[in-house]
Amino acid sequence: MTSTVSTAVALRRLPDGPISVDDFELVSSPLPALAEGDVLTRTRWFSIDPVMRKRMLDQAVGGRADGLGQPIGARTLDEVVASRHPSFRPGDLALGWGGWRDLAVQSGERLVAVEDLGNRTSYWLSALGRPGITAWLGVEHVANVTDQDVLIVSSAAGAVGSVAAQLARSRGAAVIGIAGGAEKTAWLTSEARLAAAVDYKAADFTERLASAIPSGATAVFECVGGRILDESIGVLRPGGRIALCGLIDRYQGKEPWAYRNFNLLLERGIRLEGFRIDDHQDLHAVAVETLRPLVDAGEIVVRETVADGLSAAPQAFVDLLEGRGAGKHLVRVAG
Amino acid sequence: MTSTVSTAVALRRLPDGPISVDDFELVSSPLPALAEGDVLTRTRWFSIDPVMRKRMLDQAVGGRADGLGQPIGARTLDEVVASRHPSFRPGDLALGWGGWRDLAVQSGERLVAVEDLGNRTSYWLSALGRPGITAWLGVEHVANVTDQDVLIVSSAAGAVGSVAAQLARSRGAAVIGIAGGAEKTAWLTSEARLAAAVDYKAADFTERLASAIPSGATAVFECVGGRILDESIGVLRPGGRIALCGLIDRYQGKEPWAYRNFNLLLERGIRLEGFRIDDHQDLHAVAVETLRPLVDAGEIVVRETVADGLSAAPQAFVDLLEGRGAGKHLVRVAG
Repeated sequence: MTSTVSTAVALRRLPDGPISVDDFELVSSPLPALAEGDVLTRTRWFSIDPVMRKRMLDQAVGGRADGLGQPIGARTLDEVVASRHPSFRPGDLALGWGGWRDLAVQSGERLVAVEDLGNRTSYWLSALGRPGITAWLGVEHVANVTDQDVLIVSSAAGAVGSVAAQLARSRGAAVIGIAGGAEKTAWLTSEARLAAAVDYKAADFTERLASAIPSGATAVFECVGGRILDESIGVLRPGGRIALCGLIDRYQGKEPWAYRNFNLLLERGIRLEGFRIDDHQDLHAVAVETLRPLVDAGEIVVRETVADGLSAAPQAFVDLLEGRGAGKHLVRVAG
Repeated sequence: MTSTVSTAVALRRLPDGPISVDDFELVSSPLPALAEGDVLTRTRWFSIDPVMRKRMLDQAVGGRADGLGQPIGARTLDEVVASRHPSFRPGDLALGWGGWRDLAVQSGERLVAVEDLGNRTSYWLSALGRPGITAWLGVEHVANVTDQDVLIVSSAAGAVGSVAAQLARSRGAAVIGIAGGAEKTAWLTSEARLAAAVDYKAADFTERLASAIPSGATAVFECVGGRILDESIGVLRPGGRIALCGLIDRYQGKEPWAYRNFNLLLERGIRLEGFRIDDHQDLHAVAVETLRPLVDAGEIVVRETVADGLSAAPQAFVDLLEGRGAGKHLVRVAG
């Protein structure tokens, strides 16, 4: 029996400064034979996330070369090719952790069977996947947003922010989305139907944010950090809450931001809470059950930016980090 | 009838840079006659607080000269001299807001009658007053410290921190106090009986803090901000809480601090909560009822730094801001 060869996208060197496509390479390697409990999966889609940049940065800072040449770790939507696990049969769809590659051998215990949603199957990696669950946790569990809230969402056209903003809107909150550029802000008010959208690239961003929220905000759903969070703190009312789910601003290795409005956390009695999806495993099913009917009913419009083929992944990743495209960034490998 | 003359300490100019005694002057002015409901009070003690520096800074930044020549606002422990309020008679003791002066006319509605505690009467301005209440709120209401906690307290020999640290220790928590200099750190372990004390002035402060808490801290009671908070975040465990009650570091007008460890708030799922004593009026009585038996039993040792006489107030204030003295800083005006 000939062995199966898997092709993957890997780092060929530890990135120094902003990441480029030249930091990546395609590598091929034979897969091991299936042990009892293993599943051979074909990757249909894989995920591209800003936080991957953070991991590469940590590797580079730590001089850890051991990850070079290995597939980039990522959530995948997989089709089962062969199985030695009782729960999976060829043709089944499952969420896995195959990474940036075309074929993988994974333990069946780490796979989660999912329903085929036809041309919406990728939603298991976006609005109904980890980005959606993160959005739900921040809006409903951490900030507990209600129809009394005026909520600021940063990176509001992004994978997590776009779901958080629309979920909060569907709860009756007045939502102000922050995003970069005219196309995204237009999408936020027309398609995502937010109360207002503010372009952080505008020279008068501070004034625009203040005038979009004349009475101040009660809560912030934060994905970015740095200047954008700083300005949002500036317009938070006393007793405000900040659900902190991302600090994209830091992932490219920028210097720490000196928050001008940090003192307002004290002076206005504000609560800032960092949260991580993996700390709340018990709530993931509730999150998906809540989100699915909202997505089905069009209350939450799903936005995805899709690149085709394994070799398109490096450029897609650079595009994501540089703010091109919007919503959930995905690579379609097959199907 | 001749009018009564009050002598006060006032700002004579808006301070530019670090404050000095030359920024203050003594001013005398006649007091108004008592209207119905008013009380004439003689100041026995008044409070000196770091946050007063913040208010002066705000005045200076705003170019607001209207406060010049007026008594510095402050909590006072007063003796009633004459009263047109039914609840107060001459000789009564009360907490008031007379400010830095010897005599004042105050509305009886703003006075709170207190018991004469003899040579401990000043405690109404320290461990049983606003500093103690602030400590209680942070330890019991915001951070909810228990015997499972490893708590860092900054400015642990200060007015608020010294009560917070000992209250938490009395709850069974392992408490690590941060203070400046050998005298204060020695007091923290010997008199306040904390598990450990770390000198932030030491060149190897970061290493000392880490080695004092080998398994990390679960909570922080923060009075200072800046580098000290940054280092404390660095040793906080996942799920840690930070009760933020002061940012002394900023009160002298320093530039905002670029928190190197801000990302850990996200990566470790940390909650940071600013709180203000005046937002929790309903809990003040509970706080004092909790603290009083602990103080009476010596579980909480009260430390005060006392200056004598109105004219000593400016130097006492400069001393406080420059870290001289410890515990609650007070001026004894009479009695």
